[in-house]
Amino acid sequence: MSLLENIRVVLVNTSHPGNIGGAARAMKTMGLSQLYLVQPNDFPSAEATARASGADNLLADAVICDDLPSALKGCTHVIGTTARERSITLPVHTPKQMSGFVKRTLVENNGVGGHVALVFGRERSGLTNDEVDCCQTLVSIDSTPTFSSLNLAAAVQIMCYELRCALLEDNEPNTKDVKHALDYLATFDAREHFFEHTQAVIEQLGFFGASNPELVMRRLRYMYERAHMTQREINILRGIYSAVQNQLSSRHPEPTPVND
Amino acid sequence: MSLLENIRVVLVNTSHPGNIGGAARAMKTMGLSQLYLVQPNDFPSAEATARASGADNLLADAVICDDLPSALKGCTHVIGTTARERSITLPVHTPKQMSGFVKRTLVENNGVGGHVALVFGRERSGLTNDEVDCCQTLVSIDSTPTFSSLNLAAAVQIMCYELRCALLEDNEPNTKDVKHALDYLATFDAREHFFEHTQAVIEQLGFFGASNPELVMRRLRYMYERAHMTQREINILRGIYSAVQNQLSSRHPEPTPVND
Repeated sequence: MSLLENIRVVLVNTSHPGNIGGAARAMKTMGLSQLYLVQPNDFPSAEATARASGADNLLADAVICDDLPSALKGCTHVIGTTARERSITLPVHTPKQMSGFVKRTLVENNGVGGHVALVFGRERSGLTNDEVDCCQTLVSIDSTPTFSSLNLAAAVQIMCYELRCALLEDNEPNTKDVKHALDYLATFDAREHFFEHTQAVIEQLGFFGASNPELVMRRLRYMYERAHMTQREINILRGIYSAVQNQLSSRHPEPTPVND
Repeated sequence: MSLLENIRVVLVNTSHPGNIGGAARAMKTMGLSQLYLVQPNDFPSAEATARASGADNLLADAVICDDLPSALKGCTHVIGTTARERSITLPVHTPKQMSGFVKRTLVENNGVGGHVALVFGRERSGLTNDEVDCCQTLVSIDSTPTFSSLNLAAAVQIMCYELRCALLEDNEPNTKDVKHALDYLATFDAREHFFEHTQAVIEQLGFFGASNPELVMRRLRYMYERAHMTQREINILRGIYSAVQNQLSSRHPEPTPVND
């Protein structure tokens, strides 16, 4: 099975069904098949099927979700696409950097369940900040500053093309820096539980004080997401959190909630 | 003026006006502007204008030609795109090889009038043998053998994208992925203090227990080092540590050492 099968394309709140069809066709020509749709505006639709032009099996198999987190369950890596400059942000990579990264990730994890999600936002407004918070890596397609209106299906085409180029280039595993990956990478849902636990502990400590919890949590989230944490690392940190919570609850008799 | 201005996209005998509009939009986002149409089936057309979505100036300026040779006048290099295997043929290059070649060509010829044509055939049947004879180089986008039906505008998008990547590669620094570094990266010594503080807190919590502190600390260290932490991120985490230590010292009257 091709590693391209381990990559899901997630389209968030797409307005135009033609773009869903165009994205499906773009994916299929490049050998990708997993399409997830978060709250599509108009789907299924005759226009989507027409634009899919033979890739309609991807539309039939598409998974429809109510929100982005549901579409990311089980993913070890979440990559968000962005056109906008964002003020507090993850590093933004080029499609070539991104596909090299995905290659290393999947080749390292092959057989131990690496799954990558590539998330595309709305045609006009992209991803919300909350949605970007679900991503570990951001990727942006460089375009001319005076006309950066890249069509959604065209963006999917470029990303899938680069992934195909990278993943089919040569599939020799890179054994050099596999060490942290072998201790398997945490899934999206495990990371979300970790962030919830982090926030709960910080709240119980009263550390947020006058500062904005969202801002602090976003900064911490970006930092941890850059590390591409393994499950074992998350277990260590959550163990420490529980030790903190035990100390706090032995002071205050009421039980501390565990967040998963 | 960008070297991308020296590249013309030639669409031969296009059936669907939507593809002409999509191609114009793809070109413009990537910084190309010269569109040549050889015997378009239906042009000008409202559908082309709709799909161009703001790139309609390229449609208005498009040069309409009766045959391919007329569209190639003045070109120093002609590159044909092909999906089919051809029996007697020129070597077929990948888009990355092609764009590297165009880059060398235009950089070598810059100022002495290098002009490159990138020729795209009909949606169904591509270029005729006579048309291929006009080309010096062929390029093909690899696609999955079971579904190689790449949309024309999508093919134009990939080619223009690769040309943009190649031609702007060295000319413009990628300032995008320095952002988290600007909030300056923590120095070695700041990170060492951070790790000492981490270890002190874990010890005070009694979390190491029967497990090997060195091993736990090494795991945490590797994880944090992968994130390439900024000073601000370290400040947040050390703030949290201090909050934990304050809680602990309010239980035990003896003062907690601060490790820097």
